[in-house]
Amino acid sequence: MTTSQIRSPLDEVGRSEAGVLLQETLVDLVDLSLLGKQAHWTVVGPRFRTVHLQLDEIVDAARLHADTVAERAAAVGVAPDARAATVAGQTGVPQLAEGWLTDDAVVSHFVDAYAKVIGRMRDRIERAGRIDLVTQDLLIQITADLEKQSWMLQAEQAAAGTGN
Amino acid sequence: MTTSQIRSPLDEVGRSEAGVLLQETLVDLVDLSLLGKQAHWTVVGPRFRTVHLQLDEIVDAARLHADTVAERAAAVGVAPDARAATVAGQTGVPQLAEGWLTDDAVVSHFVDAYAKVIGRMRDRIERAGRIDLVTQDLLIQITADLEKQSWMLQAEQAAAGTGN
Amino acid sequence: MTTSQIRSPLDEVGRSEAGVLLQETLVDLVDLSLLGKQAHWTVVGPRFRTVHLQLDEIVDAARLHADTVAERAAAVGVAPDARAATVAGQTGVPQLAEGWLTDDAVVSHFVDAYAKVIGRMRDRIERAGRIDLVTQDLLIQITADLEKQSWMLQAEQAAAGTGN
Amino acid sequence: MTTSQIRSPLDEVGRSEAGVLLQETLVDLVDLSLLGKQAHWTVVGPRFRTVHLQLDEIVDAARLHADTVAERAAAVGVAPDARAATVAGQTGVPQLAEGWLTDDAVVSHFVDAYAKVIGRMRDRIERAGRIDLVTQDLLIQITADLEKQSWMLQAEQAAAGTGN
Amino acid sequence: MTTSQIRSPLDEVGRSEAGVLLQETLVDLVDLSLLGKQAHWTVVGPRFRTVHLQLDEIVDAARLHADTVAERAAAVGVAPDARAATVAGQTGVPQLAEGWLTDDAVVSHFVDAYAKVIGRMRDRIERAGRIDLVTQDLLIQITADLEKQSWMLQAEQAAAGTGN
Amino acid sequence: MTTSQIRSPLDEVGRSEAGVLLQETLVDLVDLSLLGKQAHWTVVGPRFRTVHLQLDEIVDAARLHADTVAERAAAVGVAPDARAATVAGQTGVPQLAEGWLTDDAVVSHFVDAYAKVIGRMRDRIERAGRIDLVTQDLLIQITADLEKQSWMLQAEQAAAGTGN
Amino acid sequence: MTTSQIRSPLDEVGRSEAGVLLQETLVDLVDLSLLGKQAHWTVVGPRFRTVHLQLDEIVDAARLHADTVAERAAAVGVAPDARAATVAGQTGVPQLAEGWLTDDAVVSHFVDAYAKVIGRMRDRIERAGRIDLVTQDLLIQITADLEKQSWMLQAEQAAAGTGN
Amino acid sequence: MTTSQIRSPLDEVGRSEAGVLLQETLVDLVDLSLLGKQAHWTVVGPRFRTVHLQLDEIVDAARLHADTVAERAAAVGVAPDARAATVAGQTGVPQLAEGWLTDDAVVSHFVDAYAKVIGRMRDRIERAGRIDLVTQDLLIQITADLEKQSWMLQAEQAAAGTGN
Amino acid sequence: MTTSQIRSPLDEVGRSEAGVLLQETLVDLVDLSLLGKQAHWTVVGPRFRTVHLQLDEIVDAARLHADTVAERAAAVGVAPDARAATVAGQTGVPQLAEGWLTDDAVVSHFVDAYAKVIGRMRDRIERAGRIDLVTQDLLIQITADLEKQSWMLQAEQAAAGTGN
Amino acid sequence: MTTSQIRSPLDEVGRSEAGVLLQETLVDLVDLSLLGKQAHWTVVGPRFRTVHLQLDEIVDAARLHADTVAERAAAVGVAPDARAATVAGQTGVPQLAEGWLTDDAVVSHFVDAYAKVIGRMRDRIERAGRIDLVTQDLLIQITADLEKQSWMLQAEQAAAGTGN
Amino acid sequence: MTTSQIRSPLDEVGRSEAGVLLQETLVDLVDLSLLGKQAHWTVVGPRFRTVHLQLDEIVDAARLHADTVAERAAAVGVAPDARAATVAGQTGVPQLAEGWLTDDAVVSHFVDAYAKVIGRMRDRIERAGRIDLVTQDLLIQITADLEKQSWMLQAEQAAAGTGN
Amino acid sequence: MTTSQIRSPLDEVGRSEAGVLLQETLVDLVDLSLLGKQAHWTVVGPRFRTVHLQLDEIVDAARLHADTVAERAAAVGVAPDARAATVAGQTGVPQLAEGWLTDDAVVSHFVDAYAKVIGRMRDRIERAGRIDLVTQDLLIQITADLEKQSWMLQAEQAAAGTGN
Repeated sequence: MTTSQIRSPLDEVGRSEAGVLLQETLVDLVDLSLLGKQAHWTVVGPRFRTVHLQLDEIVDAARLHADTVAERAAAVGVAPDARAATVAGQTGVPQLAEGWLTDDAVVSHFVDAYAKVIGRMRDRIERAGRIDLVTQDLLIQITADLEKQSWMLQAEQAAAGTGN
Repeated sequence: MTTSQIRSPLDEVGRSEAGVLLQETLVDLVDLSLLGKQAHWTVVGPRFRTVHLQLDEIVDAARLHADTVAERAAAVGVAPDARAATVAGQTGVPQLAEGWLTDDAVVSHFVDAYAKVIGRMRDRIERAGRIDLVTQDLLIQITADLEKQSWMLQAEQAAAGTGN
Repeated sequence: MTTSQIRSPLDEVGRSEAGVLLQETLVDLVDLSLLGKQAHWTVVGPRFRTVHLQLDEIVDAARLHADTVAERAAAVGVAPDARAATVAGQTGVPQLAEGWLTDDAVVSHFVDAYAKVIGRMRDRIERAGRIDLVTQDLLIQITADLEKQSWMLQAEQAAAGTGN
Repeated sequence: MTTSQIRSPLDEVGRSEAGVLLQETLVDLVDLSLLGKQAHWTVVGPRFRTVHLQLDEIVDAARLHADTVAERAAAVGVAPDARAATVAGQTGVPQLAEGWLTDDAVVSHFVDAYAKVIGRMRDRIERAGRIDLVTQDLLIQITADLEKQSWMLQAEQAAAGTGN
Repeated sequence: MTTSQIRSPLDEVGRSEAGVLLQETLVDLVDLSLLGKQAHWTVVGPRFRTVHLQLDEIVDAARLHADTVAERAAAVGVAPDARAATVAGQTGVPQLAEGWLTDDAVVSHFVDAYAKVIGRMRDRIERAGRIDLVTQDLLIQITADLEKQSWMLQAEQAAAGTGN
Repeated sequence: MTTSQIRSPLDEVGRSEAGVLLQETLVDLVDLSLLGKQAHWTVVGPRFRTVHLQLDEIVDAARLHADTVAERAAAVGVAPDARAATVAGQTGVPQLAEGWLTDDAVVSHFVDAYAKVIGRMRDRIERAGRIDLVTQDLLIQITADLEKQSWMLQAEQAAAGTGN
Repeated sequence: MTTSQIRSPLDEVGRSEAGVLLQETLVDLVDLSLLGKQAHWTVVGPRFRTVHLQLDEIVDAARLHADTVAERAAAVGVAPDARAATVAGQTGVPQLAEGWLTDDAVVSHFVDAYAKVIGRMRDRIERAGRIDLVTQDLLIQITADLEKQSWMLQAEQAAAGTGN
Repeated sequence: MTTSQIRSPLDEVGRSEAGVLLQETLVDLVDLSLLGKQAHWTVVGPRFRTVHLQLDEIVDAARLHADTVAERAAAVGVAPDARAATVAGQTGVPQLAEGWLTDDAVVSHFVDAYAKVIGRMRDRIERAGRIDLVTQDLLIQITADLEKQSWMLQAEQAAAGTGN
Repeated sequence: MTTSQIRSPLDEVGRSEAGVLLQETLVDLVDLSLLGKQAHWTVVGPRFRTVHLQLDEIVDAARLHADTVAERAAAVGVAPDARAATVAGQTGVPQLAEGWLTDDAVVSHFVDAYAKVIGRMRDRIERAGRIDLVTQDLLIQITADLEKQSWMLQAEQAAAGTGN
Repeated sequence: MTTSQIRSPLDEVGRSEAGVLLQETLVDLVDLSLLGKQAHWTVVGPRFRTVHLQLDEIVDAARLHADTVAERAAAVGVAPDARAATVAGQTGVPQLAEGWLTDDAVVSHFVDAYAKVIGRMRDRIERAGRIDLVTQDLLIQITADLEKQSWMLQAEQAAAGTGN
Repeated sequence: MTTSQIRSPLDEVGRSEAGVLLQETLVDLVDLSLLGKQAHWTVVGPRFRTVHLQLDEIVDAARLHADTVAERAAAVGVAPDARAATVAGQTGVPQLAEGWLTDDAVVSHFVDAYAKVIGRMRDRIERAGRIDLVTQDLLIQITADLEKQSWMLQAEQAAAGTGN
Repeated sequence: MTTSQIRSPLDEVGRSEAGVLLQETLVDLVDLSLLGKQAHWTVVGPRFRTVHLQLDEIVDAARLHADTVAERAAAVGVAPDARAATVAGQTGVPQLAEGWLTDDAVVSHFVDAYAKVIGRMRDRIERAGRIDLVTQDLLIQITADLEKQSWMLQAEQAAAGTGN
């Protein structure tokens, strides 16, 4: 089946470039949701319960954003791809180690993961501005949410009870 | 971090064997959820809307069962693994082609996928009966749900308006 | 239309035997729901309101279980049959008299009806154990609910204020 | 137990005639609910999911209307009767074949069944107008709902994509 | 303030006659709600709880119908009157004795009260049919509900455990 | 496509006459909903907020009734028509001026509009009584609601604080 | 039936005095609810809608408090009395005129009515403090709510747009 | 761990005396909840269903009040104690016999139990008034609820159908 | 009434140009909602039910967006106009034929209608970017939703069961 | 009152043995709920809030399971016993110290308590398998939930931030 | 505008003194809500998430109590004042430092803040008892809630894992 | 504690400038919420109820936007400051007079306040466009909501019943 199934509201160049941006974003978000669940199950430590619950919020948000992004790809005429092998092959999100993970390690890992994903999102926002304002607005709103979650993860990582 | 973090209610052999059963099941279910979403986005054809909605029910069920199975693994003292690369590497679920897919092709694909997964679930139920009744009961309940979805997919695949 | 429409997860003997068990159960449960409604409308006596409400709970449960059982039959590849004539012809549930019924008579009737249905359910659980653990688990769960309702009906039937 | 248990707001002739109208209606509606469920379980074909869901709406409406009608019979002093044998013996609704049914066959069957039931309802409305306006109003409201469902079933039956 | 404030959709005779019908109905329904609450508080006996709860349903229905009737009066251009003295002076509903009341006495009293109110409602339906079909339809629907409650009260009053 | 698509429960004359009544009603109600929204956006004055909110209730009711009427037309075998040009061409509802409107002017306008629509509804109820009681009942219920809203609009229009 | 049906937690003098306080309060609150509904239906003027809605809040609160008070009377062993004739005969709440009432007149009337009821409530709180702290606390909480409503009614009565 | 963990808003004497009052109340309420559940399971007789449901309301209320009281103890700086042995050792609530209990016996038992608990609550209210108004207010509110439940239990116990 | 009633946050040129953009958008969206309802009632064919339901989602979205757009016009100081004659005269949305419409025809019609409306929306987004970023953002968000619906309509239109 | 009040679906030996299993389970679960509440009130430490909330989930689950188990005992014809003295005397759950408890101590205590209860549950599952599959299934489901909670408690106990 | 706008239920001295008490309380509660939000945003440390959530509960409670207190002031005839400058000038609540705050520092700060506010509330309760029991009751209920929150904050502050 | 606690997704200049914009916005929104509540409590006049309710919507919106803005500041690495003294010192929102305020005065005051805040928001949107598109988008969405509220306030201020 060819991509001409869905007529794009963008011209062919726009369709193609927007498709790339959205496909990259989709892979990052799906992988974030898989890693969020992975840590939800394997985290241990005194902060287990609060991190376990927080990770489910991260997963819910990542799934919701992934759905929005994939359906935006379809709407611009590009079939999205978030099959396991594609996600494993294309993701730029740092991977968790297997086995049990301490709560400190989980928070630290996601602080780094969010920083990397946010960096790429900001690059995509800039590129999208030259292609399609509708796609750009969607990326901006997802980034706003990711940066809010990033702040909360960093806030948890700050040293307890120190005076700074 | 060693697996001795969580004390298993099973003996070491039971823990290990239950861990294998649950890990296999987890990978199948997570992949089913990823493939369900993939088809949710890429299906086309006159039955688009009904298949699109049905796939979201399949995804919701697969995610719920995956969570139950992963937390059961943790409860028997085994850290589950559903990272993208693990799912891509270990899954036994038939993979979808990339790009747009007709509604007929999607239904047909999932009829096959469910048949394969159900076959493996029934094998695991038998093995679990020799290891841990609690794990077995959980696998039985998931299988009941998968077989119900399998019937509904097959019912859609039956030839329309023929007399048989 | 042949039964080969839906591929059974069981072998042919299992499919056939499970189909018999499920069809018998379906008829009992549908008849229980019809008799529950009949008494819901025709009961009179000082306990009218509480029995009238209780019967709606009985009807709701019977309808829910009937749906589960019929869909399980479909899932094992057997078309269920709960048409009025089939239910009237195959039911083993004791029938209510026509016309108005006293509350005592209604409670007494359902105590007996539940006892009979439970007896048959326990026999089916045993037979199902040799055929299909998934079907057996479903029958066990329905029986648990029927035995709970049976206790509540019997508890209402006990003599008031006597010392025993 | 005599029917004098519940004092009728109608005179004896009115009570008796209203009782007949309501009893006939009750049997039709209960049978419609049983046939709706039967087809809900046994339908196959590409429209399986949408017909399966629509049938549950038909069943819910038929059950609700049956309850209203049976309680109206009690309110006019007549004990209703919707036991399986009564329904099987008195129903005028066309019966479904056993086994699996194609979606086309199911829609076609219910188009006919609704036409028959609506014809009888309109006759009852006329007779009720000479007996009891309260009963008539209730029959009018149920008929309005049945005729709405009849339109939707017929609309589905219309040839697809033809120019007429 | 004159009644010409609200222009009636009826002619002057219709307005006046409909106003009388609705005002009479309003007083009966408000008094039913006050007596329902009175018995809700003063009933005693082994059936206290079930009668206490049933009376709240009677009160809720009476209040709802009273509101509908009073707003219908306003809609036909007649100011309704349900002040305490008006209700006390115009009601035709049998009054409860003061003090504690046995459950048997309460049920018996409301059986009689409903019979009287229903008799008047049926007379009003007939008169309304010559004046205004909209008002008549409203009275028919309220009567249907009152007759349903009347059946339930009578059903409770029937002798327990007797064979008839 | 011919009207024979949906078989009418009425004879051909009844179908045709009921179709006219329902089509007229549909146009009035859809126009009422459009004018209600128009005033919802353009009203100004000290009573802005309360009128703005009341108009949304008017719009919601008009939309609901329009849907009921259009589906009733379909149910009697007549395809309804509420396209913008049809509504603009056939409506009998007085039109609002463009631009901002004072709250007094809006209330006054809708008092007149409701009076006109109600007059036509009462005429249709009479005609429907000779054709189809089901359609008549539906028109009666909509008229009851319109007359209630008419009273509320008139009540707002009454002079404040004057002694009449 | 004697009042000894319910054993009072208070001694006989306390029971009797608390009974008087609660009976007086009950009559005031029930009458407030009847007058609130009366004005809800008969108010006219530019503030119709907001006063109409506010009166329903007043009615809901008065009904809720009346229920609490009547059940408190029962709890201290005194059968409450809120029959229409009792309310009409014992109420100290100023009565509304019959017929349509301007919004200004309604607000003004309820400002006065609340002032009178609050005055009596404060007297009862003082008397209750010498009898039963539980009854007193209940009266205090009802008074807090009445005084809040009184403020809101007075606030509406203040001259608009004047500089004071 | 010493009680100085939580700084009391009361002085040391107040803290100690309030702690005693609250601890006594806690034990009574927890035991009431345990006995309520015990009777919920073991009651038999024609009033089984209504008493069974009423007991769950008693249990819910007792658990809620117990939680409030225990957290009030913590808030005044005293660690509460509701361990099984403490409840069994300190309770003043009359104990139920083991085995099945008739509905009459259950109602009678709880009438007595409530009378005893209410007597102690009223004594505690008086003592609390000299120590801490906040604690006293909380005890007053719980007593109001217990006395309401006591009335309902007594009302059920009154002889049915007798003329007194 | 002059447009100076509402002070615009934009200068006069901006107010005027934004007003044009928003008025055009409003007309398109209101017409989309009217046509969506028209097809909701007149569609026939095997896909009736799914298209009938989908059209209600289209109508809900169009109404919601129309409301947002009209209130934005008011907020920039321009009175919106969505009266029937205005919509009929200014709409650029392709019109449906009268009478019954096949499901294929309906889907095809809305695919075209959405393409046209989206084209105009994208033009307006560009113009709005030079006038008012707040208005532009609103148009972008509506366009995102329209393009998502457009994809779903096109996906339904794709040939069933063909291989590409 | 003899146990013959409720006819058991099991034979006398089965009834007696199932009764023992269920009574033991009931005591453990009720004690778990009492200890959960005790720690909910007395826990202190930096993890206070998260442990306080988690304990309420533990209490809710224990209460729900206890209710299921007690009603199962009744359903097999054995009156359950969960009075305070019985629980205190028969419990096998380790008891908490009185007074304030650190969060670490609470988590540690419940890790041990769950391990003990789970050990006994697994023994009961085995014994129940020889008596009654319905009872066994119920015990299996409760054990699955307890083992899930046990994992979460152990996960919290793992050393923070250590590398293992 | 003079304070005579709202007629006080208290005499002039009572009105004035109650006004002072309520104004002081209002300022404390509004400042507590502002400081709660401030810390909600600026807290960092391993307990970030749990403290962040707890602070929102503190803010919700403070806002609710502030609203109650301000409306009570109005009800006693005194215009409340919670403008920013008034709050900043009159507050007695200790102020937070600007910038990021560790979780330990936040908990410690609110422990002190609650202690101060509770001290003032208890003084006001005493003064209110001489003026107005209705106002006093309201202050008592707010204090009960503040003291509960104070306990929870102190419990979090207790040393972790120490033996005391 | 230094601002380096939270790593900004912006460079240092962007972080600093965005911080200024967000801090200014936060102060305006918090002050709007405090003034909204102030007027909610002190407004008097015939429009009291509608303005009182509208102000709560204004407060809810202002609080929600303030929270979004403060968390955005944190997300860009700047600790927000909305303590009472900061708000009082930095706010640019016009202040309300103390004491009772007429409804006209309140509406007039908020019309001016919104105009001022909107003017500043539009300036900030422009500045944000040069710094951070994510922050800009957030400011645009808040401005859209403020401008909608501004229209509604102005609409209320328009002269009633005048012909313009």
